Amino acid sequence: MCNAVQVKQLLMKNSKEHVIATCRNPSGAAGLIELKNKFSERLHIQRLDLTIESTIEESAKAIEERYGHLNLLVNASGILSIPDVIHPETTLTKLERSSLLLAYEVNAVGPILVTKHMWPLLKAGGGIGTERDVAVVANLSARVGSIGDNRLGGWHSYRASKTALNQLTKCISVEFARKKDPVICILLHPGTVDTDLSKPFQKNVPKDKLFTKEFSVQKLLGIIDSSKSHDNGKFFAWDGKEIPW
Amino acid sequence: MCNAVQVKQLLMKNSKEHVIATCRNPSGAAGLIELKNKFSERLHIQRLDLTIESTIEESAKAIEERYGHLNLLVNASGILSIPDVIHPETTLTKLERSSLLLAYEVNAVGPILVTKHMWPLLKAGGGIGTERDVAVVANLSARVGSIGDNRLGGWHSYRASKTALNQLTKCISVEFARKKDPVICILLHPGTVDTDLSKPFQKNVPKDKLFTKEFSVQKLLGIIDSSKSHDNGKFFAWDGKEIPW
Repeated sequence: MCNAVQVKQLLMKNSKEHVIATCRNPSGAAGLIELKNKFSERLHIQRLDLTIESTIEESAKAIEERYGHLNLLVNASGILSIPDVIHPETTLTKLERSSLLLAYEVNAVGPILVTKHMWPLLKAGGGIGTERDVAVVANLSARVGSIGDNRLGGWHSYRASKTALNQLTKCISVEFARKKDPVICILLHPGTVDTDLSKPFQKNVPKDKLFTKEFSVQKLLGIIDSSKSHDNGKFFAWDGKEIPW
Repeated sequence: MCNAVQVKQLLMKNSKEHVIATCRNPSGAAGLIELKNKFSERLHIQRLDLTIESTIEESAKAIEERYGHLNLLVNASGILSIPDVIHPETTLTKLERSSLLLAYEVNAVGPILVTKHMWPLLKAGGGIGTERDVAVVANLSARVGSIGDNRLGGWHSYRASKTALNQLTKCISVEFARKKDPVICILLHPGTVDTDLSKPFQKNVPKDKLFTKEFSVQKLLGIIDSSKSHDNGKFFAWDGKEIPW
């Protein structure tokens, strides 16, 4: 899921809402900088590195000082393949400790630490400024994170990290519900989207199942907009259908 | 699950089979040393630290040289609580990056790396010396690793690591089946067993649901002994019932 496309749609679907986009290196984020030129008042770009918790805390503090609340948190991070660093594994013999840990840190630990630090802001926000009665934490998971749906194997590090994200999100949803917070968290599968991440793996994807970023983002924002308290802790595909664990 | 109790039952249920017990510090493993005095010919104790892959490789090499095969691999490692290091979390605000990563490394990554290095020995072994037609990889998981069964939340690091172990085991089972290896892998939930690990959390466990180590080990070894090819990739409780993902 492309951050810039997501940010653009968030800015365009509402003329009042402010959007905070985070990335590791704001000065190199061309897509976001272009949007900033157009939506200078309502877009704020902040540095945040999921693997450095202090940057998450600083980001939460800056949001607290500027706005005092949040009504939506989208955790759209994901690592699958980086040359010479991490590759989607095709066999057990290729599993590496370093890849397993890196995928876990970025895809599971990072989003949960962000949720931890943004939680007070989400509680303060609830559904304010939206048609929802709750704030939403939307964690980008993936169908390959489903154990029940795993018929092909492979992609061990990525799959396990997304499965763990599903469990961590479920844990958090239970606590949100128990504390009667005006916050829910949901898991989303964006489909196979035509991005740099999926590029090397598109050859077996039927054309009508390879989505543009715009289509996928539109579908996911639709699910977020219409989500209700009873959706807390659920795992939805882009078409709104629930995915088994 | 206590290694020494498991090792003892493995040694006692068959008068011919050899058992290789691994631990981080063999000279300090009193239970294993006591067994070694009694079963000197059939018990071999090897150093293996799940967080140091070279010790896993060395262990596999030593087994290769001594036996050339394996018919069973039990991954019974688990980390839940160590004073000043890792605690079962009761709320999102207590989540720590270090705990999440440590639990993942020991409970998910470690068993999978052991399986990776022992795989050739398991393929060579199959069901040799047993009444099974396959070698078995038995990964000790836990019911709290089930997402579908998670109604209480909490224990985030432990839960997510076991959930990830479930997914990794499922991935491996798919590959074993596709390659028609005489090897299956299964996931086991031992019940709540009266061990040091569970000691601080036993107060809400009904007496008839708190098992002795001997009872739980006996049940799990029964499942292992009677497992068949079609059990590959399944998640069983101590009573043989499948647990949802």
